[in-house]
Amino acid sequence: MTETKSRRRGAELETAILEAAWAELNEVGYAALTIEGVAARAGTSKPVIYRRWPSRATLVLAAWGRQRPMPTATIDNGDLRSDLVELFNMIARRVAGMMSEMIAGVMGETFRHPEVAALLRDRLKTAPLGNAIAEIMRRAAERGELEPVEVPIRAAHVPLDLIRSETMLCQGPVSEETVEEIVDDVYLPLLRGLAR
Amino acid sequence: MTETKSRRRGAELETAILEAAWAELNEVGYAALTIEGVAARAGTSKPVIYRRWPSRATLVLAAWGRQRPMPTATIDNGDLRSDLVELFNMIARRVAGMMSEMIAGVMGETFRHPEVAALLRDRLKTAPLGNAIAEIMRRAAERGELEPVEVPIRAAHVPLDLIRSETMLCQGPVSEETVEEIVDDVYLPLLRGLAR
Repeated sequence: MTETKSRRRGAELETAILEAAWAELNEVGYAALTIEGVAARAGTSKPVIYRRWPSRATLVLAAWGRQRPMPTATIDNGDLRSDLVELFNMIARRVAGMMSEMIAGVMGETFRHPEVAALLRDRLKTAPLGNAIAEIMRRAAERGELEPVEVPIRAAHVPLDLIRSETMLCQGPVSEETVEEIVDDVYLPLLRGLAR
Repeated sequence: MTETKSRRRGAELETAILEAAWAELNEVGYAALTIEGVAARAGTSKPVIYRRWPSRATLVLAAWGRQRPMPTATIDNGDLRSDLVELFNMIARRVAGMMSEMIAGVMGETFRHPEVAALLRDRLKTAPLGNAIAEIMRRAAERGELEPVEVPIRAAHVPLDLIRSETMLCQGPVSEETVEEIVDDVYLPLLRGLAR
């Protein structure tokens, strides 16, 4: 089947490919997944896929990202604590979703492949989380709640690490009480310490 | 076999039971492990075991704890940063050992049993880590490095959470560079923030 025939373009074609990749991943697993198989299922060709995603690993992570989109809504409640609580609750829901997929086996098997693990580690370094925290901090400084502060990438990722750890330990979503404890007992003190 | 015959007492008997429990766990897994089987292997009786460990879960965690003892040596280098780096490096080695056992399957299967998970969560609340951090902080305050500060339990566990998360992500032991980054970019600022 050619793209001329079906006339699919841009977003529509991408959606079809990512949905096909997700379906293949769930059906055959990462080890057995081929770009050819995804192309056949999406009714497109290998070059069309490779033009957008240079490897199996990038394609699979994009397919997964479509299932679990990062929250993009701007968080702006007018105070630092409320902004952090909202952001961390979003992270908690996302992590719980990821865990259930890992436990279901689909992403667990995928993450064990070194090229996928390497890609994930790279992404974490430039993850949107750092930007979200920086933006929340910028507004807090504007309001005069806190001195302007550079948050090191490792400090920006602390909520993700803590929530991931807690989700595994409790084998379920992190409660809102726990999120507030993380904000009050760890993250606000950390930000105050960085701002000194 | 009776204890009168073999005359094993106290520490010697406990060691024999814990070694037997560890061997059984590795051989048959937690689901199939019985106190009877452990007793037979250790050459003792069920009541002798139950007198010391009231359940399979407590026995198995004790057997595992014997394989991976918590570092007990006092950390005292004369400055807060060095003490934290030493403590976190100890944690990193311990977590890497735990992970390799989880990946090997023995503890992974065990941790999935609800009664073991519940016991582990309870222990974390009173874990020696909180005491180790409190002791390091007490000495730092004595030297005048920092105001005396109460470290909330969740803040005390931050290094364990971060190292656990990093160990999984990198699928290997956390490097000393990463440990220093955690100390400098996260933990020292957090402690300074708590001390305000």
